[in-house]
Amino acid sequence: MDTAGKPIRCRAAIARVAGEPLVIEDITVDPPNSHEVRIRIICTSLCYSDITFWKMKDFPAVFPRILGHEAIGIVESVGEDVNEVAEGDTVIPYFLPDCAECADCRSKKSNLCSKFPFKVSPWMPRYETSRFTDLNGKTLYHFLSVSSFSQYTVVDIANVVKVDPAIPPNKACLLSCGVSTGVGAAWKTANVEAGSTVAIFGLGSIGLAVAEGARLCGATRIIGVDVNPGKFETGKKFGVTDFVNAKTCGDKSVSEVITEMTGGGADYCFECVGLASLVQEAYACCRQGWGKTIVLGVDKPGSQLSLSSTEVLCSGKILTGSLFGGVKAKSDIPILLKRYVDKELQLDEFVTHEIRFEDINKAFDLLLQGKCLRCVIWMKE
Amino acid sequence: MDTAGKPIRCRAAIARVAGEPLVIEDITVDPPNSHEVRIRIICTSLCYSDITFWKMKDFPAVFPRILGHEAIGIVESVGEDVNEVAEGDTVIPYFLPDCAECADCRSKKSNLCSKFPFKVSPWMPRYETSRFTDLNGKTLYHFLSVSSFSQYTVVDIANVVKVDPAIPPNKACLLSCGVSTGVGAAWKTANVEAGSTVAIFGLGSIGLAVAEGARLCGATRIIGVDVNPGKFETGKKFGVTDFVNAKTCGDKSVSEVITEMTGGGADYCFECVGLASLVQEAYACCRQGWGKTIVLGVDKPGSQLSLSSTEVLCSGKILTGSLFGGVKAKSDIPILLKRYVDKELQLDEFVTHEIRFEDINKAFDLLLQGKCLRCVIWMKE
Repeated sequence: MDTAGKPIRCRAAIARVAGEPLVIEDITVDPPNSHEVRIRIICTSLCYSDITFWKMKDFPAVFPRILGHEAIGIVESVGEDVNEVAEGDTVIPYFLPDCAECADCRSKKSNLCSKFPFKVSPWMPRYETSRFTDLNGKTLYHFLSVSSFSQYTVVDIANVVKVDPAIPPNKACLLSCGVSTGVGAAWKTANVEAGSTVAIFGLGSIGLAVAEGARLCGATRIIGVDVNPGKFETGKKFGVTDFVNAKTCGDKSVSEVITEMTGGGADYCFECVGLASLVQEAYACCRQGWGKTIVLGVDKPGSQLSLSSTEVLCSGKILTGSLFGGVKAKSDIPILLKRYVDKELQLDEFVTHEIRFEDINKAFDLLLQGKCLRCVIWMKE
Repeated sequence: MDTAGKPIRCRAAIARVAGEPLVIEDITVDPPNSHEVRIRIICTSLCYSDITFWKMKDFPAVFPRILGHEAIGIVESVGEDVNEVAEGDTVIPYFLPDCAECADCRSKKSNLCSKFPFKVSPWMPRYETSRFTDLNGKTLYHFLSVSSFSQYTVVDIANVVKVDPAIPPNKACLLSCGVSTGVGAAWKTANVEAGSTVAIFGLGSIGLAVAEGARLCGATRIIGVDVNPGKFETGKKFGVTDFVNAKTCGDKSVSEVITEMTGGGADYCFECVGLASLVQEAYACCRQGWGKTIVLGVDKPGSQLSLSSTEVLCSGKILTGSLFGGVKAKSDIPILLKRYVDKELQLDEFVTHEIRFEDINKAFDLLLQGKCLRCVIWMKE
């Protein structure tokens, strides 16, 4: 392509000030460095982590920044030493590196690359530099190694996987973060057994994706916990069979209610909100002997989780966390896409809204108002 | 036997006052109720939990009590509905029930009987009564469903397993609690992979038994942590390959030292002391992605364990506890005994002292002074 090796001028939605509407401006996107890929974004969807870092005033929030990390696109050009993808390939970028070389990436047990440890950096992971500048020549910061709120972006080869171009991009892009995280937490981290009972704390997109993953794994009872009873109707589409309204448990705690409902506790509890107190509730009502509590919610920086030493020792319960659902992107995203094509994995139901790039700030409003699961933003103006 | 169905008078070492020497007295041992077995104890060994409940002044400590819970003996008579063992059988009693009926006992995944939940009760588990009286007719309390510091005791059928009488009793008795707990924690709870790296916090008998279990599982590096460097020499007999003296780490924490030694953390960390702060150190130096921290140490009642929410979410580490090493007594103790007979599992090295029943208080002194691993007490006077 005649743009290869040259800077590209395109439109991007820039977060210039914490919490203020994104500003769509012309920017310059540098060519990819070695081991990097420049991508034309087809569509991107808004994930709650974008909002968290848009609202946040202090480090690791930085401005001006190009947010967005759930997307799909076409490779425009590749840097040196990139053999895995080529110009014209359809690719999904993702935030958690999969370098294919380190002990973690070579192991089936870990999805936490040790060559490029996860951090919310303002830079490209391999060079600690930016590929974006605004028209005044000022550097724009990257976000989660993706920065998909731009018509073109540059992503490290460790953060991109080639996918089947026949899959509708507005569905495929969801596997870039949220749905993979939830489905993966049930499938990869918890490895939910068929016939088991699952409790999910928080029925946002991640919690619903956990339900979808648990349903795929053959869980027979999926208990959703939320303060909004309307979430139960949504949850039913993803396999939620029972609902606990945390606001109307009376003098019982949620964990007491779930322990009673299940005759001793759920086999798996997933915390998808990000509150230490809810992790404690989840842990309290996961079953003795083999119950697993899986933390997916992002709590405030510095927050501490406190558990009874006696319960840890004597209950046989297991506590763990799940970043990106334990998904190893290069191998697992294609598996999940195939399950979508085979009509096993539901993705369509997550897409509640689709808008044009110029309306990107509406996506923020919708998600903040709790009105949408995923709002897909089409990048072509 | 002509004693069947009748009370037996025998000698027992009674804990009458917290922290004061046991008193050997004549007592009366009632016949076994239904589902119970009366056992003539051959030998018993002293475990640190006996000391904990001997020193403790308040509930669940009660007095006068017959302590002791690591033992082997011969069935003198059985109560109604006991088919699993018969008069003359050699048996090992144990503290954690295995009823063979409840969902937990039927599952391979749990060793925590839900029919008789673990508690430190003063009674027989099925009837909440005692089988012991002193010569003044006063009730003597049971301990951990075993009470082996008596020449005869009564144990529920859920707390006893028949074993090969050919195995030396002064070795076999160790599987009644301590060695099974440590070896089981590596074998059953952690399921240590061959070739992996293990760190053990606290090289008392339990920690050394963890090392032995890890060695049997094929761990290639076993790091012992203790404040007493003499423990390293002992540890070498059980497979400990490296030693960290927690007192001489300089300005580094133990977890920093182990993280450096292992190039990123141990695959498995076992806390065998019972301090929340040590569990935190263990968790800090178990490897990202797949590291497991297993708690075996008994902390003070009410103590809380505090972890960073971010680390729980993002590290992929697993936290769990191990009561009785995850061992399902009726099936696993015979397996461990076979491994001893096959000269795979080392038991002899744990027996550092053997004494007569009348000298039982010496065993307390030896363990308190850190001079022994296991002191076997022979019950025949």
